[in-house]
Amino acid sequence: MQNTPTSASLSKSQFSYRAGLSSGQPIGRLMAQALAYPNLVSLAAGFVDNATLPCEAVERVVTRLANQPELLRKSLQYASTAGNDEFRRALVDWNYRDWPDAKPNAERVILTAGSNQFLHLLAEALLDPGDIVIAASPTYFVFLGMLRGVGARAIGVQADDDGMCMDALSETLDRIVASGDAKRLKAIYTVTDFDNPGGSTLTLQRRQRLIEMVQRWRREHGPLLIFSDNAYQLLRFDGEALPPLPEISADAQDFVIELGTFSKSFSPGIRVGWGVVPDSLVPQLLEIKSNIDFGSPHFSQVIMLETLRSGEFDRHLPVILEGYRAKRNAMLDALERHMSGLPGVHWREPKGGLYVWLTLPEHIDASDTGLLWQHATQNGVLYVPGGYCFPPEGVPAQANTIRLSYGVQSCQGVSEGILRISDAIRQAANAGIGD
Amino acid sequence: MQNTPTSASLSKSQFSYRAGLSSGQPIGRLMAQALAYPNLVSLAAGFVDNATLPCEAVERVVTRLANQPELLRKSLQYASTAGNDEFRRALVDWNYRDWPDAKPNAERVILTAGSNQFLHLLAEALLDPGDIVIAASPTYFVFLGMLRGVGARAIGVQADDDGMCMDALSETLDRIVASGDAKRLKAIYTVTDFDNPGGSTLTLQRRQRLIEMVQRWRREHGPLLIFSDNAYQLLRFDGEALPPLPEISADAQDFVIELGTFSKSFSPGIRVGWGVVPDSLVPQLLEIKSNIDFGSPHFSQVIMLETLRSGEFDRHLPVILEGYRAKRNAMLDALERHMSGLPGVHWREPKGGLYVWLTLPEHIDASDTGLLWQHATQNGVLYVPGGYCFPPEGVPAQANTIRLSYGVQSCQGVSEGILRISDAIRQAANAGIGD
Repeated sequence: MQNTPTSASLSKSQFSYRAGLSSGQPIGRLMAQALAYPNLVSLAAGFVDNATLPCEAVERVVTRLANQPELLRKSLQYASTAGNDEFRRALVDWNYRDWPDAKPNAERVILTAGSNQFLHLLAEALLDPGDIVIAASPTYFVFLGMLRGVGARAIGVQADDDGMCMDALSETLDRIVASGDAKRLKAIYTVTDFDNPGGSTLTLQRRQRLIEMVQRWRREHGPLLIFSDNAYQLLRFDGEALPPLPEISADAQDFVIELGTFSKSFSPGIRVGWGVVPDSLVPQLLEIKSNIDFGSPHFSQVIMLETLRSGEFDRHLPVILEGYRAKRNAMLDALERHMSGLPGVHWREPKGGLYVWLTLPEHIDASDTGLLWQHATQNGVLYVPGGYCFPPEGVPAQANTIRLSYGVQSCQGVSEGILRISDAIRQAANAGIGD
Repeated sequence: MQNTPTSASLSKSQFSYRAGLSSGQPIGRLMAQALAYPNLVSLAAGFVDNATLPCEAVERVVTRLANQPELLRKSLQYASTAGNDEFRRALVDWNYRDWPDAKPNAERVILTAGSNQFLHLLAEALLDPGDIVIAASPTYFVFLGMLRGVGARAIGVQADDDGMCMDALSETLDRIVASGDAKRLKAIYTVTDFDNPGGSTLTLQRRQRLIEMVQRWRREHGPLLIFSDNAYQLLRFDGEALPPLPEISADAQDFVIELGTFSKSFSPGIRVGWGVVPDSLVPQLLEIKSNIDFGSPHFSQVIMLETLRSGEFDRHLPVILEGYRAKRNAMLDALERHMSGLPGVHWREPKGGLYVWLTLPEHIDASDTGLLWQHATQNGVLYVPGGYCFPPEGVPAQANTIRLSYGVQSCQGVSEGILRISDAIRQAANAGIGD
C-alpha cells in the first residue's frame, strides 16, 4: 500500500518554523468574517476612500508621461534597488520643504511598494529572535505580526491622547536595563501623527523627550533606533503640522528611520512607500532588498515622480483631506448621538488619519470571541477588536477597546455603522447584566 | 567621557543573524565594478533590451484604462493579497491556452511584483535552516543567495545542454536518502526553459522523468515540491514550445509550483510576476504575503490585465523576440568569429532566453579575483563569473565558466563585448603560460 501524504499533512509539514510564527494574523480572520456577512458595514477595513481616489489626476499624469518618451521608456526598465534616483531627490525636496533641518540626502532613501514592505524589510534585516522593540499600547497590529514573525519581543508602553507617554517610556527603559536585556533593545516604534489605531499625535514636547531619551540610551547602552512611521502625517484635518523627529536634533539622522507612503495620501493601488535610513544602514538594507525583489516597481515610482512635479499631488491632497474630514466628523457626530448616553464609553477625537479609538466599560469584551462581536456581526457591522493592537508585554491588553475606521465607508455608512455598534453595545451590556 | 558608538559599530551590531546570511551577494560586487568602469560593455547585467520595451503598447493600454473609469478607480485602491481576481482569471486563460491539462484554478494564482519576490516568499514560507533544495549546476545565483539567506542547503546536480541530468538527479536523491536527510529535502528547483545561466532547456523526456521521480519520492518519503521557474518560457526564438510540468501528469498540481513573470517578456518596470501553488499551500502563503505587503501593486496588475485582453501583449511579443533573436545571433556569431580558434573554449547555443554559458580551459580562473576578470575589466567588458552559479554542495564549482547575457546590449555592443572578452582570454591564457 502506498503511503501517500494527504493534502493536510503536506501543508502542515512543509511550512517553515517562521511561517508558523507568522500564522494566525487577526487580519485573516477579520477578512473571513467580512466575507461571511456580505451586507456588513465595515468600520474595520484599512482600505482608503473610493470616492476621492485620484482618477483624473492619474489620467493627466499618465498623459504627461506619454509625452516624455525617454522617461516612459526608462520607467518600463528595471530601476536600481533603491529606486529611481530622480524620484528619490524629488521626494526629499518635496517631503521636507517645510523641514529643512530634517531633509536627508537622497542616497538615504529606499523606495518600496508601500511602507509596510519597508517595515518588513526592517524586521527582517535588524531583528533576531529575542530582540526587543518598544511600541505604544495600542499600536499598529500588522507590525506586531511582523515582530512575532521574526521572533522578536514587543513591549507596550502606556499611551494617551498625545501618543506614547514619555514617563512610562522612561520606566520601561529602566525596567529593560534592570532585567539585563539592554543589549536586546533594538528599536522604539512610533506612529507620530494620527496613530493607527490610537488616533493620537505625539506632541512636540514628547517628540523632544523621545529624542533625548534615545540620545541618552545610546550614550549609556549603545545602539538604539527609532522607527518613525509617518504613514498618516499628510492626513491632517485640523491644526498645524508638527516637526518630524529628525527636525528636532541634528544627530537624529543617525538613529531615526522614517517611513512614509503615498498609499493613504494618494493611492494604495500605485503603492509607493519609502524609508529614510541612517547612512550606515543603507548598503546592507539594499543588499537584502536586492535579494528579495531587485527593487520595487519602477513604473509606479515614475508615476509618483510626475505626480509630485506636475503639482497633481498638491492639488489633489485637499480633496482627499476634505473627504476624510467629513467622514471623521460624521463618525464623531454619530458617536455623540448614539453613544454619549452609554456609561463608561468614550473615544478619542483624532485631528487626522483614519481611526477613532473607542473604549467601552471594562466588563465588555470586544474581542472576536466575545458577545459584543457576535451582536455586532449580527447587526451587520464590523470593527477591529482593540485587543489585537496591544504588544504582548508591558501594558496589559484591554479587551474592552475597539478600532474604528472611517477610511472606506461613506458618511452615511459611517453613521449607520456607529448606530449598529451602539445597538450591539447595548445588547452586550444588557446580556452582561442578565448573566 | 561619553561612550558614543561609531557608525561602524552601529551598522555591525544592529543587523540580524539572517541579514548576515544574506550579505555578500555577488550582484552587489558586480554592480560596484560596473560603476567603477563607466565605459564598460556589460554582458553581465540582467536588465532587458531597452530598444524593444513596449512604450507605445503601454500608452495605448493606459488610454484604454482611462476610458474605463470604474476599472481605473479600482486599480488605484488596494487589491486583495492574492491580487486582482479578474486578472488572475485572465492570466490562467491566456497562459495555459495551449496547455489545457495544466490550466489551474485561478484561486491557485498569487500575484507578486516580479517572480523573484515569489521565490523569496517560497524560501521564507517553506524552508528552515538545514532544509535541502536541489538545483541544476549551474543555477540562478540570486536564488542561491535566497537559500543561503534562510540557512537552507543547496545541492547541485550535473546539467548539460538539455538541462538537469535525470540520472544524476536520481543518484543525488539516493545519496540524500543514504545520508539520512530524506526528511530535509523540500524542493527541486528548475528553470525549465532557457535556463539562467545555462541557456539549456529541459527536454520532454527529462520533464517526464522528473515528474516520475518526484511522484516516486512522495510515495516513498513524503512531501517534495518542484519549483518550476518559467521566467524565460515565452522567450523562445527557435523550435516548438514544450509542455509545462503540470501538463505532463494530472497530479502534478499537488506538488509543482510554477513561477512566471512579465518582466522579461514585456516590462520589468511594470513588474508583475506570479506563482501557481497547490491548493493546500494557498492560505498560509497569502497570510505571509499579507504580513509583508498586503499584496503587490494593483495598478500594475490592471495594466497587465488590459495588456493581455487588448491583445497588446501578443502583438508586442514578436518584437521582443525579434530583438533578442538578433542579439543571440550576434553573440553566437561573435563567439564563432573570436573564440572558435581558442583551445578548450566552448559554449551552448540557447534556443531562447537571455544567456549563453561559456566554458574556458580548466586552468583559466574566471572568478572576480582572477586574472581574466582583471583583463576583462581593463579591456572594458563585464561578465558574470560562472562560479557564482554553482550550489555549494554537489557538483564542484567550475571557476572556468562565464555567464554571458545579450539582454541589454545592442548587437554591436554584444559583438564588441565578445571581442574584448576573447582578448582577455588570450591575455589570461598567455599570462598563465608565462607563469
